Amino acid sequence: MSAEVTPSNHDQAAPRDALTKLAGLLQADMEACSKAIVSRMDSPVALIGQVAAHIVAAGGKRLRPLLTLAAARMCGYAGGQRHVHLAACVEFIHTATLLHDDVVDESRLRRGLDSANAIFDNKTPILVGDFMFARAFQLMVEDGSLHVLRILCTASATIAEGEVLQLVTQHDLTTTEERYLDVVRGKTAALFSAAAQVGAVVAARPLAEEDALASYGQDLGIAFQLVDDALDYAADQAVLGKTVGDDFREGKVTLPVLIAYADGTEEERAFWRRVLEDGTQTDEDLPHAMQLLERHRAIARTVERAAGFVRSAQAALSIFPPSALRDALTDVATYTIQRVH
Amino acid sequence: MSAEVTPSNHDQAAPRDALTKLAGLLQADMEACSKAIVSRMDSPVALIGQVAAHIVAAGGKRLRPLLTLAAARMCGYAGGQRHVHLAACVEFIHTATLLHDDVVDESRLRRGLDSANAIFDNKTPILVGDFMFARAFQLMVEDGSLHVLRILCTASATIAEGEVLQLVTQHDLTTTEERYLDVVRGKTAALFSAAAQVGAVVAARPLAEEDALASYGQDLGIAFQLVDDALDYAADQAVLGKTVGDDFREGKVTLPVLIAYADGTEEERAFWRRVLEDGTQTDEDLPHAMQLLERHRAIARTVERAAGFVRSAQAALSIFPPSALRDALTDVATYTIQRVH
Repeated sequence: MSAEVTPSNHDQAAPRDALTKLAGLLQADMEACSKAIVSRMDSPVALIGQVAAHIVAAGGKRLRPLLTLAAARMCGYAGGQRHVHLAACVEFIHTATLLHDDVVDESRLRRGLDSANAIFDNKTPILVGDFMFARAFQLMVEDGSLHVLRILCTASATIAEGEVLQLVTQHDLTTTEERYLDVVRGKTAALFSAAAQVGAVVAARPLAEEDALASYGQDLGIAFQLVDDALDYAADQAVLGKTVGDDFREGKVTLPVLIAYADGTEEERAFWRRVLEDGTQTDEDLPHAMQLLERHRAIARTVERAAGFVRSAQAALSIFPPSALRDALTDVATYTIQRVH
Repeated sequence: MSAEVTPSNHDQAAPRDALTKLAGLLQADMEACSKAIVSRMDSPVALIGQVAAHIVAAGGKRLRPLLTLAAARMCGYAGGQRHVHLAACVEFIHTATLLHDDVVDESRLRRGLDSANAIFDNKTPILVGDFMFARAFQLMVEDGSLHVLRILCTASATIAEGEVLQLVTQHDLTTTEERYLDVVRGKTAALFSAAAQVGAVVAARPLAEEDALASYGQDLGIAFQLVDDALDYAADQAVLGKTVGDDFREGKVTLPVLIAYADGTEEERAFWRRVLEDGTQTDEDLPHAMQLLERHRAIARTVERAAGFVRSAQAALSIFPPSALRDALTDVATYTIQRVH
């Protein structure tokens, strides 16, 4: 493949199909990665294969493994299939966290299909998630780089810390924006960051390039989650692939809410406290919450914050020479905020 | 410490305090291990520390880390504190599985105290378990041995497979003994085996000694679980530190039940199907089940099976020269079956 040496001819419009374009540049790698994911989920225990097949069949964007593959190729990696196997690890870690998240959040939809806990029960996804997590580490050990293992172990611990912190901030409107961002850095950005950084590691690039890709992934991940939190109040269910208003019903305190709460009248604040802290909700409450978010431009302001992280992510790529893959990674960052209609 | 070079003066009576004796031979190591466990559970997220402190305060026998320490010292390890850190890893992996098991089984007691899910909720132990699992891998990466990582990652995947297989066999009286033993090998014996094997690895002993310790741990783990399954129908709750009859209420198909079912009359089999497969139980059913187990000597026969694994575990130690630690490990195997009154 010649993608990483093609000179930049960057379309500033950053098309909405940025992800498709990036995946297209990495088509062979993505196919190899999908095969690795399927073949390495094997277990003599049939139920593990069934759960894994369900969640893999649901697809998803495969954004995280795509970051590993893109970063490795942009860094000139051409030494074998390490990037493919590590991209599969990254997806396994992500899948394990999804299985556990859906149990914790009692979600019924995932990637537009019934969630594993909706189809099986709560027990199965807890244990299959543990298997996928362990299998991810087995794959990393096979790869044999302690540096890669350190990056992805640290990310895994940080993810779990972010998830626990999210539990603590749930139903708590005194949560500060900084603490909210700590949750986001943990539950989402840590894996984006590690996924991108690992690409530089397999390509044996200098630490400065590792750090640049780690920063890119980190800021991309934050932007991605901010927009996800906005979409929970703004998207079509069909587009989102999960239920609109999930965060609201679960009493999650996200940036749109923090903005509307900070700017709200005393009556509005009493509303937020009732629905998110006390958890007393009626059918009219979600539409009313959306009106309040609109009144305070909370969705737009959340996306503006996300745009700041997108610019920062894109700036981190500047140490790399221009290439089609660098452009595609730049566009993927822009795409993140274009998901809001 | 001179324990590993002291000539054998083996008390064949295998005192009931075999665990205390083993821990006594390793007192400094066990104290260092306890310190490592406490210090490495640290997290800026306070709730993680609270859950960890709760489960650590409950104590437990620390049998698995003890195996790592004993194996390392018996193999002559004197090169530093690697065995201590890896023993802490083993305990972290074990603790993570306990937290998840108690959610899956809806247990209310653990180590004689309220379980984490009883005190907090179901969400917290799922996420804190994930953190402990990730933290265990971080500690292993710090240790820096890919061989150790491979052993403990494989064990972790095998544990999860065993737990999933246990879900599949639950409520299913057509489960074969072989399949039941697969569950036991996964959920319990894999970590015992890995814990002991790692001791030989840090001492840089030949593969034959690694294998011998892996076999010892494997068979000890099977014996331990068989006896645990017997105790679920036979012990005092105070002695067991968990609720008697848990397996029965959860419809777990264990060896005592398989023995009584195989030898039972048609009426007895109908009873087992109603209480374990249909899950329709009254207060009189547990005492009746215990009578049936007594009638078919199912507890005694389970312990006899366990005794076979104990002998096999002890035989695996024969390649090591006699020493106080080898004797203590031999006695610990005997102790396993002496837990049944």
